[in-house]
Order: sequence, then C-alpha cells, then structure tokens
Amino acid sequence: MSTASPTPDEATTRPPGHLVRSEIAEQPEVAARILAAAGGELARIAALVRADRPRMVLLTARGTSDHAALYAKYLIEIGLGLPVGLTSTSTMTVYGARPDLSGVLWISISQSGGSPDLVESTAAARAAGARTLAVTNNPASPLAAAAEHHLDVLAGPELAVAATKSYTAQLLTLWLFVSELAGRPLDAAAGLPEFLARAVGSDDVAPIASRYRFVDRLVLTGRGYSYPTAREAALKLMETSYLSAMAFSAADLMHGPLAMVDADRPVVAVVPEGPGGEAMKPVLSALRERGADVCAVAPAGLAPEADVRLDVPTGLPEDLAPIVQIVPLQRLAIEMALARGLDPDAPRGLRKVTETR
Amino acid sequence: MSTASPTPDEATTRPPGHLVRSEIAEQPEVAARILAAAGGELARIAALVRADRPRMVLLTARGTSDHAALYAKYLIEIGLGLPVGLTSTSTMTVYGARPDLSGVLWISISQSGGSPDLVESTAAARAAGARTLAVTNNPASPLAAAAEHHLDVLAGPELAVAATKSYTAQLLTLWLFVSELAGRPLDAAAGLPEFLARAVGSDDVAPIASRYRFVDRLVLTGRGYSYPTAREAALKLMETSYLSAMAFSAADLMHGPLAMVDADRPVVAVVPEGPGGEAMKPVLSALRERGADVCAVAPAGLAPEADVRLDVPTGLPEDLAPIVQIVPLQRLAIEMALARGLDPDAPRGLRKVTETR
Repeated sequence: MSTASPTPDEATTRPPGHLVRSEIAEQPEVAARILAAAGGELARIAALVRADRPRMVLLTARGTSDHAALYAKYLIEIGLGLPVGLTSTSTMTVYGARPDLSGVLWISISQSGGSPDLVESTAAARAAGARTLAVTNNPASPLAAAAEHHLDVLAGPELAVAATKSYTAQLLTLWLFVSELAGRPLDAAAGLPEFLARAVGSDDVAPIASRYRFVDRLVLTGRGYSYPTAREAALKLMETSYLSAMAFSAADLMHGPLAMVDADRPVVAVVPEGPGGEAMKPVLSALRERGADVCAVAPAGLAPEADVRLDVPTGLPEDLAPIVQIVPLQRLAIEMALARGLDPDAPRGLRKVTETR
Repeated sequence: MSTASPTPDEATTRPPGHLVRSEIAEQPEVAARILAAAGGELARIAALVRADRPRMVLLTARGTSDHAALYAKYLIEIGLGLPVGLTSTSTMTVYGARPDLSGVLWISISQSGGSPDLVESTAAARAAGARTLAVTNNPASPLAAAAEHHLDVLAGPELAVAATKSYTAQLLTLWLFVSELAGRPLDAAAGLPEFLARAVGSDDVAPIASRYRFVDRLVLTGRGYSYPTAREAALKLMETSYLSAMAFSAADLMHGPLAMVDADRPVVAVVPEGPGGEAMKPVLSALRERGADVCAVAPAGLAPEADVRLDVPTGLPEDLAPIVQIVPLQRLAIEMALARGLDPDAPRGLRKVTETR
C-alpha cells in the first residue's frame, strides 16, 4: 500500500518516535471522523448481513489486526449470540482446505489490506459461499478487492511500523458494525473522542515507563473484552522495546503460566468496570499472593491493591473500554523504547506490510 | 478428581522430577492402550456425529488441553472441511451469552474434567442445542457428566502437575475420533508406540538443556499442525523452569514479534515433514538473517541451517507428528528445571486441578 516505511533519509530528519507519537495523538480526531461517517456504507452492509441470518462468523487477521478480531469475537458472541471462530489461515493457504462456508459471515481485518495469505483465504472463502467483508485502512488494497464488501476504518495514512491509530479505528468500526447488526443505537460511543483526548493527554505514563526502565520480561493479563487489550499491548512492547511481553487471558494465566510470575516479573492487569473487571478479582488476589508487582490499567477505585496504575476514565461501557484502555499502553511502549535509546518508528527487522502465506 | 498433588511428605521421599519423568516414559504404553481400545465407544459416538452432519465445531479447553484443542482444530478444518472455533469461555460464564448452538458439535477437552468454567459452559452448550462431547482422563468427572458423550483418553492417573502423557493421549484420541468421522482408516497410527519409544529413549536432550542452562527468555514457533507443539512446549517451560517462553505461529511471528528476536534469545522451531515444514522455510531464513540461535525439532535432513537440533524420527505423517514432536520438548523442560534446582513435579503456585470461572 501507499504507506511505505520511511526511508533512512527521512528517518534521520526527525526525532525518534515522532511518527508514532503523532499518530497516537490523532486518535480522538480519527474516532470523531469514524462516528461522523457511521450510518452510510456500514448500515448498508449490516442490513444485507442481517437479512442473511448467518449461522456463524469467521474472523481472519494477523498481528495487531488479530487483536481487533479477538475484540470483535467478544462483541459478536455476546451481542449477537452467534458462534465465532478465529481462522487458522494455514488450513486454507498451506494445506488447501476448502470448507463449505455457505451461511458464514467472513470478516478479514488488516491495516494495509496487503498480506497475501489474507487475500488468498478471503478469495477462497468467497468462492466457498461465505459473505465476505474486508475491514481495512486502504480501500484500494488487494484485500478490499478480494472481499465482496469493504469497510474503510478511516484512520488516514499510518507511517509508523507499530500500528496505533489504525487499531482503535478498527475497534470502533467493528463496534459500530456489530451494533448495527444488533439493531442497537450507536450513541453510546458518542463520548469516545473526549475519552480518547483525556487518555492521550494524561501525564501518568512517564512514572511507569521509568519504573520499567530495566525490565526485560513482563506479563499482561485481562479477561473478556479487555483481553485483546493485554494482547495488543504485549505486541507493542515486543515490537518497539524488544521486551519478552507475554499476554494471557486471566483464566489461562491460572492454568500454568502463573508459576512463572514472581516479584521480579511485573504484571500489567487490565481491569474495566463491569463483569470482566469483576472476574479479575480472584486473579488479582492470586497475583498478590505470588508477590507480583502489579500495574492496574483501570478506572479510579478499581483494583486498589495494585502497586501502580495507569488511569482509564470512569463511565465507559465495558464493550467500548478497550478503545480507550490501549492508549496509555501504546504510550508506555513508546516511552519505554525511547528511554532505551530505540526508535519506535522503525523497529529492527520489520516492515509496514508483512507478507506471509 | 483422584489425581491430587503429592503432599509435601510424599514429595520429599523421592527425587525431584521422579513423577513427571516416569509419566513421560509411559507415553508409548499409553498410545498402545488407546490404539487397542479404538473402535468401541469412539466409533459409536463418531457414527452419531456423522449422522448429525454438524455445520461447525466448537472446541473448549484451557492450558495444556487448549493445545490439544488447537491440534483438533487443524485436524477438523483440514480433514473434515468444517469450520472450527475455539471458544472464549467467558462470553458464556462471565457475560451470560446464550448462543443458538443447534447443529454444532461441541467438544470440551480437559485432563481432570474438573474446571467449573468448562463444566458450566458445556452444560450451557448442551442446553443451547449442541451435541456435546467431553474428552477427559476421568470418566467420573463433572465434565464427563455434563456432556452428552464422553471419551476417556486412558492415560491413567497423572500425578505430576505438568501434564505430559495426558496431552499425547488427548492428541491421539482426537486424531482417532476425527479419522472415524472422516471415514479414514486408523492404521496410519499403528507405528506410534514405536515412534514414541524412540523419542522417550533418545539421548539428544541433555546437550540442549545444558546449552540453555542460563537462558531466561525463549521463543518457540511452528506452523499448522505443529504450531500446537510450540505452544505446549512453551507452557511446559513456563510451568517447570519459570522461563519467559513465548510461542507464535510462524506467520504471526513475522507480524511484529520478530523484532524482539536477536542472538541472545534462542528460538525453537518445530519443522515437520510436509506442507507445514515447507512453510517454515522463509521463517527459518528470516531468523537466520536476524542472527537468532535456532534449535530445530525436526527429522534428520530438515532445517539444516539450525544451530542445534532435537531429532524427531522420519516417516511420520504430518498430522500425527505432533504426538511425537512434543516428547523431546517435554524432556527438555524437565531437564532444564532440574538443572536449575527446581522440582518439576511440584511447580510453585500451581495445583493439578485449576478452578477458573
């Protein structure tokens, strides 16, 4: 796509992290743009899908977009009562499986719309009878062309390799789409630009970045809607600070990985208002018993036992909270990378469009 | 269930790792027992499911059993051409979603059959119209009672906290069940006890355990059928040696986490014979470019560029290979724990039956 990595020349003319910091700061504006556009193409496609009465939904994505897909899985299973699968792309691209996908809604999510395995599996799904929808940041991409329908996440060109504004744009677009499918009003999301503006401007990230300056291993955890936040934050930390950042659903954490948590390995726990946050309570207790050092990403008053916190505004419905929760964690990853002398705009070994088959 | 953790008294009367080592060594015998029993209950349930013509399969599990579920996902998608979803249990247990599951085959996998969230979601799935099957190591468990059907994986009592023989027993049971569903002959698996005996007796684990004595961060990767092997090996290393062991599908590794790989973070790559092994080639090249130190878990002749290797016998069909590949990695995890002065039979903070909701 058009958002190529910056050339070495370009990269030397601006300070490290300039690109990604400005893209993080754009998120309130991007959300306002998406909300202003809701109702058009989104409502039209939702009406077609509703008329299909799909028997299930398959989601396909990689990297950051895979975390948007996981978020959509919770939205659809809880909000629509439809079973959802995250695809294992290789079954179609490497092993040549050609399942019968009649009555299936297939959603492919990708910032660039450029990865060949997504294009190939989406084309195969369309041929196998699925109704296919691509959700990308590039209407001119091969993936947008391969799918029957396309939703533009309207994030604008994203130049930093680490995806930030395109992620929250994917989440909000998927939330709006699922709400349209469910026939629910969209106004619960009206306050998001303001919530995002507060998250972008908050000053509590620097002390945590300083506390984690010499950390090389970190565990992140969340449950339900907030589990994708833990996954995406882990990927940002891996990409930009080269940390061993491991994310687990809070329930999975208890089935084994808990053994590895001790006082020397900080844990970041995402705790929203609502049932998902309630379900975190026994996990926070278990972490305390293990002597873990816990950072809560939570509204004031929740997870009071945490050692440190990154505040998230109160009053967000749990299903919208992930769109805001990720912002302090994006900022934390960038500040940690900069403190280590790394350039989060250009992680080693990565390009903006990853081509896998 | 009956396989409680050893009491401290019991644990002091035998050398550390005694339990898990003997359970690893039992795997050829367990496989022979499962093969001898195939055809009975397994064939009866498969005939019922075949007559249903299910529209999709949902798999639910946690921890080690979740890796058996992931293996079954590949078997079913490739072998039966049915779409498969791994459930997010919290949508039903925390958020109360009650999807319409008519026409769905629901398979719950658990060693103990005791985790309340699996029992609750399986009961809910049965009430919602799914045909439900529990695959456990305990016919008297609550999960076996909650599901309409039950398959016993016949591993015998497993006393070490880290699951080993119950994992390969789950894989083989699921392979046999899916083969019955597909109407394929079962004799491709006849050689497994012999393959397992060679893996259990091989002497190439000690040098790798020595090489990794001071490693605290490790990356594991595989593709397709062999991706669950990477995931399960990572869990064993986390549980027993408290390593930050991170597993990625080889395609996902390229979408971001690759940035964190360098010469100081060893990579274990599982490379089988077949299309999944072929698809690993560009990933092995990318790892080499990054200067990574790679251990190949592979038959002789594959992945020649690896720095070190754990051999897997040649001649295994790719869909059966995971049952054998995991054995050297189980042994590696145990030897690494022992070398660090830890007791892999009794990891800190874990119990044999984990109760999550």
